[in-house]
Amino acid sequence: HPEYILTLSCLDQRGIVHRVSGFLADHGCNIIDSAQFGDAQSKLFFMRVHFSLEDAGVSDEQLRGDFAALGDTMQMNWQLHDAHKKPRMLIMVSKIGHCLNDLLFRYKSGLLPVEIPAIVSNHTDFYQLSASYNIPFHHLPLAPGASAAAKRTQEDKVLEIVRDCDIDLVVLARYMQILSPEMCAALKGKAINIHHSFLPSFKGAKPYYQAHDRGVKLIGATAHFVTSDLDEGPIIEQDVERVDHSMGPDTLTAIGRDVECVVLARAVKWFVEQRILQNGHKTVVFR
Amino acid sequence: HPEYILTLSCLDQRGIVHRVSGFLADHGCNIIDSAQFGDAQSKLFFMRVHFSLEDAGVSDEQLRGDFAALGDTMQMNWQLHDAHKKPRMLIMVSKIGHCLNDLLFRYKSGLLPVEIPAIVSNHTDFYQLSASYNIPFHHLPLAPGASAAAKRTQEDKVLEIVRDCDIDLVVLARYMQILSPEMCAALKGKAINIHHSFLPSFKGAKPYYQAHDRGVKLIGATAHFVTSDLDEGPIIEQDVERVDHSMGPDTLTAIGRDVECVVLARAVKWFVEQRILQNGHKTVVFR
Amino acid sequence: HPEYILTLSCLDQRGIVHRVSGFLADHGCNIIDSAQFGDAQSKLFFMRVHFSLEDAGVSDEQLRGDFAALGDTMQMNWQLHDAHKKPRMLIMVSKIGHCLNDLLFRYKSGLLPVEIPAIVSNHTDFYQLSASYNIPFHHLPLAPGASAAAKRTQEDKVLEIVRDCDIDLVVLARYMQILSPEMCAALKGKAINIHHSFLPSFKGAKPYYQAHDRGVKLIGATAHFVTSDLDEGPIIEQDVERVDHSMGPDTLTAIGRDVECVVLARAVKWFVEQRILQNGHKTVVFR
Amino acid sequence: HPEYILTLSCLDQRGIVHRVSGFLADHGCNIIDSAQFGDAQSKLFFMRVHFSLEDAGVSDEQLRGDFAALGDTMQMNWQLHDAHKKPRMLIMVSKIGHCLNDLLFRYKSGLLPVEIPAIVSNHTDFYQLSASYNIPFHHLPLAPGASAAAKRTQEDKVLEIVRDCDIDLVVLARYMQILSPEMCAALKGKAINIHHSFLPSFKGAKPYYQAHDRGVKLIGATAHFVTSDLDEGPIIEQDVERVDHSMGPDTLTAIGRDVECVVLARAVKWFVEQRILQNGHKTVVFR
Repeated sequence: HPEYILTLSCLDQRGIVHRVSGFLADHGCNIIDSAQFGDAQSKLFFMRVHFSLEDAGVSDEQLRGDFAALGDTMQMNWQLHDAHKKPRMLIMVSKIGHCLNDLLFRYKSGLLPVEIPAIVSNHTDFYQLSASYNIPFHHLPLAPGASAAAKRTQEDKVLEIVRDCDIDLVVLARYMQILSPEMCAALKGKAINIHHSFLPSFKGAKPYYQAHDRGVKLIGATAHFVTSDLDEGPIIEQDVERVDHSMGPDTLTAIGRDVECVVLARAVKWFVEQRILQNGHKTVVFR
Repeated sequence: HPEYILTLSCLDQRGIVHRVSGFLADHGCNIIDSAQFGDAQSKLFFMRVHFSLEDAGVSDEQLRGDFAALGDTMQMNWQLHDAHKKPRMLIMVSKIGHCLNDLLFRYKSGLLPVEIPAIVSNHTDFYQLSASYNIPFHHLPLAPGASAAAKRTQEDKVLEIVRDCDIDLVVLARYMQILSPEMCAALKGKAINIHHSFLPSFKGAKPYYQAHDRGVKLIGATAHFVTSDLDEGPIIEQDVERVDHSMGPDTLTAIGRDVECVVLARAVKWFVEQRILQNGHKTVVFR
Repeated sequence: HPEYILTLSCLDQRGIVHRVSGFLADHGCNIIDSAQFGDAQSKLFFMRVHFSLEDAGVSDEQLRGDFAALGDTMQMNWQLHDAHKKPRMLIMVSKIGHCLNDLLFRYKSGLLPVEIPAIVSNHTDFYQLSASYNIPFHHLPLAPGASAAAKRTQEDKVLEIVRDCDIDLVVLARYMQILSPEMCAALKGKAINIHHSFLPSFKGAKPYYQAHDRGVKLIGATAHFVTSDLDEGPIIEQDVERVDHSMGPDTLTAIGRDVECVVLARAVKWFVEQRILQNGHKTVVFR
Repeated sequence: HPEYILTLSCLDQRGIVHRVSGFLADHGCNIIDSAQFGDAQSKLFFMRVHFSLEDAGVSDEQLRGDFAALGDTMQMNWQLHDAHKKPRMLIMVSKIGHCLNDLLFRYKSGLLPVEIPAIVSNHTDFYQLSASYNIPFHHLPLAPGASAAAKRTQEDKVLEIVRDCDIDLVVLARYMQILSPEMCAALKGKAINIHHSFLPSFKGAKPYYQAHDRGVKLIGATAHFVTSDLDEGPIIEQDVERVDHSMGPDTLTAIGRDVECVVLARAVKWFVEQRILQNGHKTVVFR
């Protein structure tokens, strides 16, 4: 049977679950997994339903058309994803490659059901690694202190790849360039960054040095959606590891890398499985 | 409005969510929170719905009667709890009181919405602590090496308190007596024990000594339902803490106590909020 | 045998360990436990040695006098504590008592080897709890919006208790008043506060509300020395717990309380065992 | 300056630290880092000292010769490692490669200071991955149900590689063959295995299936020295991750893999840095 994942949000109101489950029953669909959340603060309701379409007489087109009508009635923001279609992911990286290597291995071993049609870097360090996975590598350099215009030119090339490769998700796997507001706008809701601190602590550059200097006893990492407010995008996932006074910035950095890999991998997997819904500047994650 | 928590399990089949949500809509109920889970292995479906009854014309009696009909049709195992009614909890303890003290303080500060009509102990160590919370303390001693008959006599007194006080939940907060099979049967599904290891490791006596002897790098605690298979009951919650070679059994014991308090408190809270459903020898916990 | 804990810091230089261990050997002392740390950044060396004095011919006075000479030679900042003498601890609390209750129970069950000669509060909520442990309770109220002068008067009363009771450690166990710079100076190095966030995130008031608003996926607590820079004192211990989108500020607060208890209890225990040395605005903790 | 790491164990006795630190001072050595531990149970004393030899007049030979004399006097079990010499590591793997991939990337990025002269597998799945790192790959197959003699023949080839490549550490990175007692004896103290459960829970095969069946709320991994008692070797490191009822064995397996990578990588790093000392069937880890 075809399988779908439906995600939706709308103003909270009585009977949403009933109407959605009724729609699915009427269209010969069987719910495999379902989760919902009503935010008391924003008065928004969020839902994710994984279902199989078991009635061969119902077409994909009919399902989408009929749901659009329901969605209109209830003023829903909704998406219907083919559960068997692998999202297409672009990875961007600079000179630190542990997250890239981790994502590539998960992809190759089938743990991350995505297509990766392109890797973009402003450096050449990971050309060979990309080649060993047979993934096209695009070297789009940016000189230190490049002008805004030069940056826009480089970013336009990235966006061209996004368009040409039909990219669903851009992952900044330690890509050490600040994106322009235009670029952020173009990638809104589909770019995930890994920041090497437990935000909102230690925003900005060199967070492990900041953490060492402050003498914290835990260090961490944060995966978040990219927005034009640097390090302020909606948080998707965070984790931490214990450290102590005897560890210098280099040790913190090494320990932190393991946390970054795992946190980013979780965020990407949840995105791919349509488990993340945005709720203003926050996220709902149906794990 | 009156609020209810409905918990149910039945064989998985198409349309359960739809029929339950339809029932609630038809009876003027608004879903506040809902969670469900289908176990692919046992083919059982589990659901918990928290809802408010907003139609003043629908009585408690009518709601229960009508749902019984639906439950029969679908061969559900179900319970409908008044969300505002505090469960009545009996705590049993021996000579180690950190879990008792922790539960009592949560109760007093309103973090644990229960009534505690009685505390039972085979020792007198915590009589004054119980008195300071104004909770009746029952000293029901058991001589070391007491006969099975003597144990049954003592246990019957406990069960009498359970009946007289209309107890919904018995918490073994480091009660260091093995319950007889009859007692386990009498308390089936409503007695929670805290075991001081991450089960199934280190079953039986002195788990922190076993852990020290084995040289593990993590120690933990497990809250589980009481069954006649010692330390084999359905696991509700577990947690661990890191330890190292420099720590002797006493230090492990001290560190473990903090884990025990938190793990038991979570299990009790989830029970009280009707979040735990039994699935054979396992649990479904809708956190 | 008498037991001592020696803590020291000085400029890093060759032979410190050798000279200290030589001193102990010459004075009939046996090392039970020893730890050291050289900070590459500050060029300071830190050491903690737990030893027993096994030569009955060496007096406490002689040991201290002789070590003073060595300490002078190497320009050490050092302290020699009688390991069997219980530190004297003052607890301050306002209207939220989980940390107070937790510390009192650890004290009573012998897990925290301290004397508690006094509890101070600006409210009366925990008078009865204090009385149940037979500890003198001092109600020193502060009107909302009290003048700086009124605050100084109240603080002077606290300091009088500190003096009269010969207090070694002041624990702010959710004491919701900002101490004046004078008070901070008077308690320098011997006052520990528990802050309900993983600092440096969410400084200031209502951290769980800030955390909820930011949508973080972990919440935490921080125990730190009190300094006049609010929430900027040297961090002693931190921990976190996982949360998700479905939890409101109240739930975050409840979850956070368990973290606060454990984090504060660890910090207090380490202080009592002379495991914490200050290194500028950071701490060295010999766990 | 040359740097060394000295590790030693001996019966606990007064003055060990003093004599070792005296030896080092007399030989123009400066202690960079030092840790010690006295086991109250086994009465053994363990020490690790990282030092630099700053007196150009003292040769490596003289240092070793003189320490041998001290070691004899105190009946020490000791080793003196050149801190700049990279240990030589052999990785063994079967068909599951996340740990191999993780170790290779750490090696390549300089996070793991080792030489890797060979990779051995009973399958060919990771030939290309090995080749992309330019490391010789040895395919030493073992037919299912191979005889003990066939296994010994295959193992002898492994031991030949160990000898020829001068291997210091053999890492079983998900190598799914049980080693013969002879092989275990030959690799005593220098072979580390990763087991995919928090031992001693779920020994033997398919631990994630066992964990799922038991309904535990945490799953984990354990790195341990290989001994002929299967899954009973001295534990070096463990960690866990939280799981819940909704996760099937496949999800547990996927989550567990991340834990395995990190746990094994820590154990290998500590071995390489000479931080692990065996204490009977347990380990002392000077982190």
